[in-house]
Amino acid sequence: MVKVNENFAKLPANYLFVDIAKKVDAYQKENPGREILRLGIGDVTRPLVKPVVDAMKKAADEMGYAETFRGYGPEAGYGFLRETIAAHDYQNLDISPDEIFISDGAKSDTSSIGDIFGLDNIVAVCDPVYPVYVDSNVMASRAGDYKEGSGWSKIVYMPCMEENSFLPTFPKTVPDMIYLCFPNNPSGVSIPKEQLQAWVDYANLHGSVILYDAAYEAFIQTPGVPHSIYECQGAKTCAIEFRSFSKTAGFTGVRCAFTVVPKALQFGGTSLNQMWARHQSTKMNGVSYPVQRAAEAVYTEEGQKLVRENLAYYHKNAKIILQGLQHAGFTVYGGVDSPYVWMKVPEGLTSWQFFDELLKRCAVVGTPGSGFGTHGEGYFRLTSFNTTENTEKAVQRIVEQFT
Amino acid sequence: MVKVNENFAKLPANYLFVDIAKKVDAYQKENPGREILRLGIGDVTRPLVKPVVDAMKKAADEMGYAETFRGYGPEAGYGFLRETIAAHDYQNLDISPDEIFISDGAKSDTSSIGDIFGLDNIVAVCDPVYPVYVDSNVMASRAGDYKEGSGWSKIVYMPCMEENSFLPTFPKTVPDMIYLCFPNNPSGVSIPKEQLQAWVDYANLHGSVILYDAAYEAFIQTPGVPHSIYECQGAKTCAIEFRSFSKTAGFTGVRCAFTVVPKALQFGGTSLNQMWARHQSTKMNGVSYPVQRAAEAVYTEEGQKLVRENLAYYHKNAKIILQGLQHAGFTVYGGVDSPYVWMKVPEGLTSWQFFDELLKRCAVVGTPGSGFGTHGEGYFRLTSFNTTENTEKAVQRIVEQFT
Repeated sequence: MVKVNENFAKLPANYLFVDIAKKVDAYQKENPGREILRLGIGDVTRPLVKPVVDAMKKAADEMGYAETFRGYGPEAGYGFLRETIAAHDYQNLDISPDEIFISDGAKSDTSSIGDIFGLDNIVAVCDPVYPVYVDSNVMASRAGDYKEGSGWSKIVYMPCMEENSFLPTFPKTVPDMIYLCFPNNPSGVSIPKEQLQAWVDYANLHGSVILYDAAYEAFIQTPGVPHSIYECQGAKTCAIEFRSFSKTAGFTGVRCAFTVVPKALQFGGTSLNQMWARHQSTKMNGVSYPVQRAAEAVYTEEGQKLVRENLAYYHKNAKIILQGLQHAGFTVYGGVDSPYVWMKVPEGLTSWQFFDELLKRCAVVGTPGSGFGTHGEGYFRLTSFNTTENTEKAVQRIVEQFT
Repeated sequence: MVKVNENFAKLPANYLFVDIAKKVDAYQKENPGREILRLGIGDVTRPLVKPVVDAMKKAADEMGYAETFRGYGPEAGYGFLRETIAAHDYQNLDISPDEIFISDGAKSDTSSIGDIFGLDNIVAVCDPVYPVYVDSNVMASRAGDYKEGSGWSKIVYMPCMEENSFLPTFPKTVPDMIYLCFPNNPSGVSIPKEQLQAWVDYANLHGSVILYDAAYEAFIQTPGVPHSIYECQGAKTCAIEFRSFSKTAGFTGVRCAFTVVPKALQFGGTSLNQMWARHQSTKMNGVSYPVQRAAEAVYTEEGQKLVRENLAYYHKNAKIILQGLQHAGFTVYGGVDSPYVWMKVPEGLTSWQFFDELLKRCAVVGTPGSGFGTHGEGYFRLTSFNTTENTEKAVQRIVEQFT
């Protein structure tokens, strides 16, 4: 008889945001008239900018004529997009187009990158952490068993707390696969260059690979904060970088991202660039052509201008949250180089208790820090992705109810 | 030090169609003036039909306004599409929308479905076979080691030859995971209902799962040939079905497909529907919204009418190949319920030798049968996806050169 993958049974029944959605749905049913303000899931609200819409429509039109129709594209993405990304995002970093792999999302890539590594590698993650890194390793059998309070037996957790400014420090056990995400989801903090350089040096010293999720790179405002891990010396021999158009250009519903696997990245003589190319050509058929044209349009002059206006809009919202909560006496972090504000929940409440209270008393939805890991307990994530009007309203309600 | 997934090193260096593309590129460079006629890769050429283009453009427009903008969609696909598919494709088969999972392609799904099964299951495939089923199991360690001539040590091969009308018979070793594809890629033959029913009964008897790739379902012309495995009694307790808009509606560059995992499909009390839902919600973020609207438009009255005209066009091409080659004395199979014609290569040549000869003498590209497995040796796949004009030209050139 066929055996199922038993690791699935070890996972919590639902993905974090599915749990939250259910609670919110239940609340809405009980309070049909009440306006719920969602500062929970990290989903954008600003519409696509005009050059992006136009590019997608133009590509859709091309698909309607035999002369310009396109069937299967290259699995790793069209040259026009890979070249544009290399020239724009990696201008002085010497990343070539064939080191860039276009995909339908950073979630797809960060959850599948493990496929090219052995099952006996030791995985390290920050705590708190974006759940996908952990869950995908649970499915692949790298996580061991779950124990309430201490987490997965085989995962090396790197606590990110107030004491270390939410930046991970080298763990006692040397890990093989190190997931880092900066600007960080969920804490919203960015990493100074010298600290990222220290991680690159550490990985090169130990032969570890850094899986660097830079999905929020476009939010960086602080001068000197690295936008790419390849700004660090030696990163090409130890790091894979994930980027996305989701938050940068409002593509959460459009679906486009990319992953950089440098050719210099080799372990035991094996090229990870070649492995990932083989993985992608076996397991997907490239990203929708109109979507790739839409992504290309993000890089036009007009596209850049408008996309930056949207980012400024979210920055303003983050500032409203930060200043409003600070003013009301809350302790808050992040929110400068990132769309996420990481607040300490009021004394005496757990993260989920605060979630329930906030929903009940304010009809505001956030994400409980404990949903991201043990060391997220006592914290709460608010996002700047709602409208300015709703963000102001939400902050006002929180301040009224909790001060 | 990080260990790579060593199974990748066991794989042939390239994906079959990448090898072919290289040979064709080299030929074109040597013969810059020569018109190459491509009947190789199974890629469509007819443009998208108007309702599909219009739906995609309309959706792109919606994304440009805050009021109609959509961010993250449901990971398993929007209700509007899942409901339409259930009502149209599974009208009398009692498949509900939450048993249908929208994805970016049948390749993604057939190559990832293994994730929800244990690594020690025995895998059976037809021989010849679409390479993705095998390669994805090699990566996952289920294939064992490769030996020239006999294939992968742990894979159960089910030879599909003239003697059994290219339909697999029950193997000596009972497999746990059985990949079936009908209408078949590469042979182009379809399976009669009673033989598919026998496989369903076999799987239910032994507790095996059938992974049923029905990507070419829309090409079925022969009355009584099953369009879905769920037409067979008991299939819901043993089978997962994969479908795609790629060949049906020319979506190879648009990317949309779906997978049916019935709720009745349980092994050891575990619901595969729930497992696949968990897999998808952890490893992807849904399909592009404009793409899902485009897929929905395939089901409109006008969409259906135009899509069927395209299918008729490809059927006509298949007929040209079948009749032209038969007339010239070749032995040919398939091509009726499928866009693929499976021809026997001339006596004394291997599949790859015939590929080279055909390229050199006719500038016609096909796919060597041996690229699909040991029992594909001596055969050659031609597709009906080129224009009628080119198909006629290709057949003429073959007939001239090889008779």
